[in-house]
Amino acid sequence: MKVIGVTGLPGSGKSVVSRVAKNLKIPVVRMGDVIRNEAKKRNLTSGEMAVKLREEYGEFVVAERCVSTVKRLDKNRKKAKDKGSNSRPRIYMIEGIRSPYEVEIFEKNFRDFKVIAVHSTPKTRFKRVQKRNRADDSGKVSEFQRRDKRELKFGIGDVIATADYMVVNEGPAKKLKSVVRGILKNEMQNDSQS
Amino acid sequence: MKVIGVTGLPGSGKSVVSRVAKNLKIPVVRMGDVIRNEAKKRNLTSGEMAVKLREEYGEFVVAERCVSTVKRLDKNRKKAKDKGSNSRPRIYMIEGIRSPYEVEIFEKNFRDFKVIAVHSTPKTRFKRVQKRNRADDSGKVSEFQRRDKRELKFGIGDVIATADYMVVNEGPAKKLKSVVRGILKNEMQNDSQS
Repeated sequence: MKVIGVTGLPGSGKSVVSRVAKNLKIPVVRMGDVIRNEAKKRNLTSGEMAVKLREEYGEFVVAERCVSTVKRLDKNRKKAKDKGSNSRPRIYMIEGIRSPYEVEIFEKNFRDFKVIAVHSTPKTRFKRVQKRNRADDSGKVSEFQRRDKRELKFGIGDVIATADYMVVNEGPAKKLKSVVRGILKNEMQNDSQS
Repeated sequence: MKVIGVTGLPGSGKSVVSRVAKNLKIPVVRMGDVIRNEAKKRNLTSGEMAVKLREEYGEFVVAERCVSTVKRLDKNRKKAKDKGSNSRPRIYMIEGIRSPYEVEIFEKNFRDFKVIAVHSTPKTRFKRVQKRNRADDSGKVSEFQRRDKRELKFGIGDVIATADYMVVNEGPAKKLKSVVRGILKNEMQNDSQS
């Protein structure tokens, strides 16, 4: 089994990477969904919830929940495969890695774990975040910088700096998609060979 | 005046970026030289010295010394220009930025300050570091990882994650050189227009 993690600061283009994976039939687990679902229940913003969840259940809660989800998906897939209905390579994506501790957990649980980092300049990311209207994306520079700082405090910079793949996303989404498709196809091939 | 900072983990290819700048007649100030010169005097490794210098003179000592150097270079250049012997754009490079605090100092001192980050995968960087024989580069994985962690502790990951340019350096130096040359030429042009 192979797991590809995706990391990047807000507005860098993580979700574009997930979309490419989905199109290649790679199941995607979004760390943000764990947080967003919990936030909705408690009527908090995702940002507040990310901090709160970690305070309540420890640094590793989101990562641990994602590990369980991926293992469950893989179990189901194996069952389906035993019945002869599935022969795709066992490859999964986890979107939204924020800290080196999370990377450690994934490395401990998945023998073949790699990280793709998406980088865009702060200027480009701010423009994208402004265009979006998700509840946790404010249009102000100060809020954008505050969010960046919160992510960096989790250690996302360390995850980005030591990533196995760095994809730069300054131009149109099309270009990013084609680069990511290349990386994922290559990883899928390597997986089916092993 | 425009100043371009260069950041990247050990073995990423920072010095290739400096070499391109030098070829374009952009003066380069290497933060590592401040440390290496001091280390030689005291008979310590550069790594030990980096930590020690900051302990003795504070977080900002290396950055502050670089600011002085760049300002001195620019003064001399202006003098030369007044005498009519120099009309190149006023652009400088500082190689080896390690922490967001250093970025803050540079931003405070230089109105037009941008960061280029060089990224290579840990695997590639390790191979390069092994090939080198600088005193502070050990051939062991454990030493390589120890060095990475020391750099990340300074906050280099944050500097990389929020860089204005991200150049990926997995292939031959030739490719990196051509990308960097494009960036720098563009920056030089923008400078002479302003």
